[in-house]
Amino acid sequence: MKNTNIVQYMTQAFELAKGGLNKTGLNPLVGALIVKNGKIIGKGFHNEFGGDHAEIVAIKDAEKKKYNVKNSSLFVTLEPCCHKNKKTPPCTDMIINKGFKKVYFSSYDPNPLVNKRGIEKLKKSGIKVEMINLKNSLTEINKGFETVIQHKRPRITLKICSSLDGKIFSRIKTSRDVGDLKQQSDANKLRNIHDAVLIGINTLKMDNPLLTYRGKGSKDFIQPKPIILDSHLKSPINSNVFKTGNNPVIFTEKIENYKKEKKLKNMGVEIKTLKSITPRKIINELYKLNLQRLLVEGGGQVFSSFIKNNLWDEIIFYYVKTLYGKNSISMTDSLDKLVDISSDCKSEVKRIGNSFRVKITK
Amino acid sequence: MKNTNIVQYMTQAFELAKGGLNKTGLNPLVGALIVKNGKIIGKGFHNEFGGDHAEIVAIKDAEKKKYNVKNSSLFVTLEPCCHKNKKTPPCTDMIINKGFKKVYFSSYDPNPLVNKRGIEKLKKSGIKVEMINLKNSLTEINKGFETVIQHKRPRITLKICSSLDGKIFSRIKTSRDVGDLKQQSDANKLRNIHDAVLIGINTLKMDNPLLTYRGKGSKDFIQPKPIILDSHLKSPINSNVFKTGNNPVIFTEKIENYKKEKKLKNMGVEIKTLKSITPRKIINELYKLNLQRLLVEGGGQVFSSFIKNNLWDEIIFYYVKTLYGKNSISMTDSLDKLVDISSDCKSEVKRIGNSFRVKITK
Repeated sequence: MKNTNIVQYMTQAFELAKGGLNKTGLNPLVGALIVKNGKIIGKGFHNEFGGDHAEIVAIKDAEKKKYNVKNSSLFVTLEPCCHKNKKTPPCTDMIINKGFKKVYFSSYDPNPLVNKRGIEKLKKSGIKVEMINLKNSLTEINKGFETVIQHKRPRITLKICSSLDGKIFSRIKTSRDVGDLKQQSDANKLRNIHDAVLIGINTLKMDNPLLTYRGKGSKDFIQPKPIILDSHLKSPINSNVFKTGNNPVIFTEKIENYKKEKKLKNMGVEIKTLKSITPRKIINELYKLNLQRLLVEGGGQVFSSFIKNNLWDEIIFYYVKTLYGKNSISMTDSLDKLVDISSDCKSEVKRIGNSFRVKITK
Repeated sequence: MKNTNIVQYMTQAFELAKGGLNKTGLNPLVGALIVKNGKIIGKGFHNEFGGDHAEIVAIKDAEKKKYNVKNSSLFVTLEPCCHKNKKTPPCTDMIINKGFKKVYFSSYDPNPLVNKRGIEKLKKSGIKVEMINLKNSLTEINKGFETVIQHKRPRITLKICSSLDGKIFSRIKTSRDVGDLKQQSDANKLRNIHDAVLIGINTLKMDNPLLTYRGKGSKDFIQPKPIILDSHLKSPINSNVFKTGNNPVIFTEKIENYKKEKKLKNMGVEIKTLKSITPRKIINELYKLNLQRLLVEGGGQVFSSFIKNNLWDEIIFYYVKTLYGKNSISMTDSLDKLVDISSDCKSEVKRIGNSFRVKITK
């Protein structure tokens, strides 16, 4: 097979993988493509936590269309699994049994139960294997899964939008929004690649956000789950976020108003009571809730508490061309220590409309 | 003449013009080159406020080397002058009298006494003229002169270096410097293209800076003039800036300690007393002092006062990968109003070492 075709097929497999965004829980996003005699005969992606893996979906797709997958090539974005400690049988067995000729994969499974063993197993059974290392944005989709495997917690992105002097709220300005439309559109895209969006009670009250992704492809998109930190259950019942049908979760410390609790539950809101609300405890709970990519959208207190606890994998700062001066609230007004960000962190800076975006990745 | 040669000669003329940095007072930086039969026979740049213009220096250079400039081409970065209301005779007359064949220039003189009239005069006398519009950093050297002509004041660049949350000083951190070496080196280069550097008394006391340019070519470089805002003449006698021999100026409101005043004067410091120190008044004084490019290096109070008075042409923010949190001083702690920066301003953002530089130009 030509190299250009191989790259095209693998790219397509990654595009397929994206179909699983916000559907796979803690499982990785995987896409698979079956090619025989220069023709794509089967396609699939992992679509549901505990459901069929992408390879199996692709095989079933081919067979449903009366194709025989024997001697065909499989393109799969992640190393096929070989372990039995899970809900579905190992994909390697199926690939071997079906008589595939060659398997192209893009990265080893970081899960130590699989890592390199899946590929070894295929090789031993006489199937040719080749690693196709694509360097594009699609290959980033499994960063969440890697964090899950490595740290036993969701991947955390902190987002903050401030004036050039680091302020997020002005007591002088009448409008609440710091950013402009282009900045807001760029920031909204972040929700597209996260399966939960977290805010504090102050942000809920002041901004009354929907917390939905509203860009391209949002129609058929499973919206991220809204997470609200609200220690005294002060969330206004008529908040926009409760009307979206996106099954929000409120973390609270004490429920005094049981009538309100009942009302919220009737609106589809899940209420979880913790002894104390700390970033670490919240993250543990979100892991249990099967969420792998968390976007923390503020405000300053929540941002500062995650920074202080060093609980982040990526921070995205938006600076808007304004100076708020002293009559305003800084992004770190509740951060009581100095935090140096390691020079090992990758960083990227870009102009977005009338603003600047600084992205720092651990 | 080939187009590539023309661009090369004009670029060289701009390089020559840089020789006048910090020497021309309120006059523009101009470079000139004389080419005859494919050979450079004369070079010159404007070197001194009120001194010979670049064209004249180049002609004298050629003639000193026994060349006849008749029928040669003149490359000059700025339109030759044609007015008599100044210290030297009009260059157009000399160019006509010497029998030049062609004049290449890069921009019209913004001075309304000259603007386009110099070129018209050359044309009328039968000399061919051609505008060569170079798009490179060298052509920026006369922004100061343009501001002088347009606004009757020096061009003002504000520089500030802060943590990512907009803080310039931490009460926790022991080290005083926010930036790292690469950031500091980049910021130091700004002094290379300014003929005065202004700080407030707090910055003088806390940082004890030299206020000198220390990069490439600093040996033969006329250092920018240090300007210190010090309303109560509290400047420590042993400050580094007084040892550089760069003729600092202190602006003060009241002199009580005449002994100190005398000591400072003996060290080459000029002391100017104003009824009140405001950015507008300082700028007027610097204009009288024949300074065309001012770099305001802080601290926060001085930065805020220039911002508040809308007295700036360019702002350069350096953001260092640190969060200082609440126990710190913000760059705008003395800015009592909200300032929106016009979306018409040009902006540029770049990673510098471990920091980010945001440059905003009116």
